[in-house]
Amino acid sequence: MARTTGSHAGITGPRVRQAALRLFAQKGYAAVSMRAIAAEVGVQAGALYNYTPDKESLLFDLMRVHLEELLAQADFGAEADPLTRLRQFVEFHIRFHADRPDEVFIAYMELRNLSPENFAQIEALRRRYEDRLETILRDGAKQGVFAIEDTKIMTLAIIAMLTGVNTWFRSGGRLSLDQVVAQYWDMVRRAVGAE
Amino acid sequence: MARTTGSHAGITGPRVRQAALRLFAQKGYAAVSMRAIAAEVGVQAGALYNYTPDKESLLFDLMRVHLEELLAQADFGAEADPLTRLRQFVEFHIRFHADRPDEVFIAYMELRNLSPENFAQIEALRRRYEDRLETILRDGAKQGVFAIEDTKIMTLAIIAMLTGVNTWFRSGGRLSLDQVVAQYWDMVRRAVGAE
Repeated sequence: MARTTGSHAGITGPRVRQAALRLFAQKGYAAVSMRAIAAEVGVQAGALYNYTPDKESLLFDLMRVHLEELLAQADFGAEADPLTRLRQFVEFHIRFHADRPDEVFIAYMELRNLSPENFAQIEALRRRYEDRLETILRDGAKQGVFAIEDTKIMTLAIIAMLTGVNTWFRSGGRLSLDQVVAQYWDMVRRAVGAE
Repeated sequence: MARTTGSHAGITGPRVRQAALRLFAQKGYAAVSMRAIAAEVGVQAGALYNYTPDKESLLFDLMRVHLEELLAQADFGAEADPLTRLRQFVEFHIRFHADRPDEVFIAYMELRNLSPENFAQIEALRRRYEDRLETILRDGAKQGVFAIEDTKIMTLAIIAMLTGVNTWFRSGGRLSLDQVVAQYWDMVRRAVGAE
């Protein structure tokens, strides 16, 4: 969509982020220029610089917004029993990430392109998310419904296993997402020793 | 290390692959030029083209050699019982990948940069490796020592969980690799329903 040169019309956060996301996921961060992102948005490169200082800020923004949405939605009623909260976590994690393949891909692949300060912020957000799962595991272990030797390792193992769904799941494939969720829940339930 | 211009001395497969691997892992495939790889090897760019037709061939070679080594070493005595073979798989997978962080990173991150033909070859090698695990799971399910609803899903879930160790394990950290192996074996053993 061509825009009037110099006009800032249409340079909104979501549109720029969406264009950057699509291009980064498709070609890789290093291969995408600000000019290419501007062209995707339909503005001149100069106009884009009025919106964002540089490409790394765009990458950081994509990761930050992704993780903030994740944290905003990852609400597992603390009053429920640990087994119920764990089941909610498994279902939430698979569905949230299956809906966002590009964001997930970038969040893992392009970390090395963040500045140390931005990397630290992203890591802190990611850790807050991991902590939500670890809290569930610790509560369950304390109440004796889970048998877990090391809740930190279990947290990382579960998240890796669940996020792995994104590398192979295709909607319309052999299994529905409901079936995938059910099978992973079965594996996780067993792995934490809740029989 | 500077080399005589035009000399092919020192342009061996392993040296070129090692230079490409280091640079791809550090900066990303798209950001690395053949000139930069040649400089890392210590030869002129022209000399490198005598060894390899293009950058994509180098990437393909890295992935192919990585997976061929994986397949060559992933030998789990078919005569042993499924539980023993599964334990061997878990230990082998974690140790093999922990030794090769750059290869693992590239094998997952840069798939999109392969030509369709090369991508198909890499996928076929990866599938052969997955099949080794799935055979163990199927044998165990048949013998009634594992309780698994879908051996394909279980295969992918276990591999994702084990490969995830690479994203956080650092030697000299809180846990030794032996401890990590022991804990993951415990999780996998439970997940397949072998109590």
